[in-house]
Amino acid sequence: MKVDSKQIDEFLVKLLDTVGQTLRTDAIKKKSVGTKKNRNDLVTNFDKKTEQFVNSEIKQAFPDATIVSEEGYGDAVQDMSGLVFFVDPIDGTMNFVKRQDDFASMIGVYIDGEPLNGAIINVMDNEIYHGGKEIGLFINDKRIENPKNLPLIEGLVDVSAPMALANKFNVQEVIKKSSGFRVYGSAGIIFGHLLTGKEVMYMSYLAPWDLAAGRVLCEAAGMSVVSIDDAPINMLKSQVVIVGTSKVVSEALTTVKTR
Amino acid sequence: MKVDSKQIDEFLVKLLDTVGQTLRTDAIKKKSVGTKKNRNDLVTNFDKKTEQFVNSEIKQAFPDATIVSEEGYGDAVQDMSGLVFFVDPIDGTMNFVKRQDDFASMIGVYIDGEPLNGAIINVMDNEIYHGGKEIGLFINDKRIENPKNLPLIEGLVDVSAPMALANKFNVQEVIKKSSGFRVYGSAGIIFGHLLTGKEVMYMSYLAPWDLAAGRVLCEAAGMSVVSIDDAPINMLKSQVVIVGTSKVVSEALTTVKTR
Repeated sequence: MKVDSKQIDEFLVKLLDTVGQTLRTDAIKKKSVGTKKNRNDLVTNFDKKTEQFVNSEIKQAFPDATIVSEEGYGDAVQDMSGLVFFVDPIDGTMNFVKRQDDFASMIGVYIDGEPLNGAIINVMDNEIYHGGKEIGLFINDKRIENPKNLPLIEGLVDVSAPMALANKFNVQEVIKKSSGFRVYGSAGIIFGHLLTGKEVMYMSYLAPWDLAAGRVLCEAAGMSVVSIDDAPINMLKSQVVIVGTSKVVSEALTTVKTR
Repeated sequence: MKVDSKQIDEFLVKLLDTVGQTLRTDAIKKKSVGTKKNRNDLVTNFDKKTEQFVNSEIKQAFPDATIVSEEGYGDAVQDMSGLVFFVDPIDGTMNFVKRQDDFASMIGVYIDGEPLNGAIINVMDNEIYHGGKEIGLFINDKRIENPKNLPLIEGLVDVSAPMALANKFNVQEVIKKSSGFRVYGSAGIIFGHLLTGKEVMYMSYLAPWDLAAGRVLCEAAGMSVVSIDDAPINMLKSQVVIVGTSKVVSEALTTVKTR
């Protein structure tokens, strides 16, 4: 199958730009809605509405592609052959609901199982992180350099709250070897931090749509993306992943305990 | 002693505006410096230089005031009589060093032991949170409303990383009762979140200069600021504090264990 990564990139950026405009308006609506039940219904609606819009745009532009997405409007994808889009309409829902910032929208694109393109919008900052191995990495129109390959001791690490608090997989030992621990609560926002060197590692249990775009971008930036037991990443299931500089991921893998 | 809260507020805003401009330039310098040792020396210099500047401006404008500050250029303050300024030149040093965002500069002002004025600049966002009980609360020139008095279950909580990971004071039980756990790594940044309702509680071990400005602003916003054993806050020592909506602080105090 012949695909044009540059063309897909332009499509993704335009799409997420539109999604960003809508979600910023939604965030303001969300803030002004009175009761808790109404607020929650509203968020579910925003999520579904966004996914429906994104999926229909993808189907129109790439009729042969299949879609894996969070809210159920995607396809029943059984294998990774051909062009597969992963869609997370609102990532960091709790941040969207509770703080109206630090949430994202993400699309990852794979071709015959290989990472091709990724795009993540930090909605409230209106910054789109996008690109891939073939075309390089950008924030909006600006090309960015790969982050430095820092060791664990020199960087901040972000670990999902339940995992860190319960010390699952001995992760607190990894945290202790780092410069410090942060919890921002949205995979998409944290991928942005990794791509700009603000954090050096993210560890969490992620669904395919949580991981897809970030994996493309972080691998294109020279970082490592591994499942916690060092098995190959499987894009059709949820798994515990470590994403970070290659030095940090090596150190983390020798520190975590999987049994 | 007769003091004019509006006049002090104007002084603080002008001062932090200047500090912000300098620190944004410093952050860029910091990013470009090569070796780790040089980078650390640079940060210490930024911290000291900022404090010296702030303290000398305060002394010039308020010659009778005393100053409690982090880096040692303040006075040996023994009691809270008269006008006392608390200065934290760079709050969230690790964020400044590692990510060049989410750090702050803070000044709190007390008169005969009573909270009077506070000002916190989110340096990279160029937002100054300021005001006090007498004059109300502002972000830059815009007056802000008090955040809603939400219960624990409806909001995100920020707890210092070492305290949360080690479950000190049974704090993980407080976290479990909330909507979610976040770690942003700077008291000043988190006070901004509390003032805008993005988070409903912050718990940490804070020095006087970490707490002073945030206490003034949060109390002026109708929130509660208590020491963990529910004793009166002592502004001349470090202590474990809980800051949050009054509902959340009540719930937290019945959940934490101090022995």
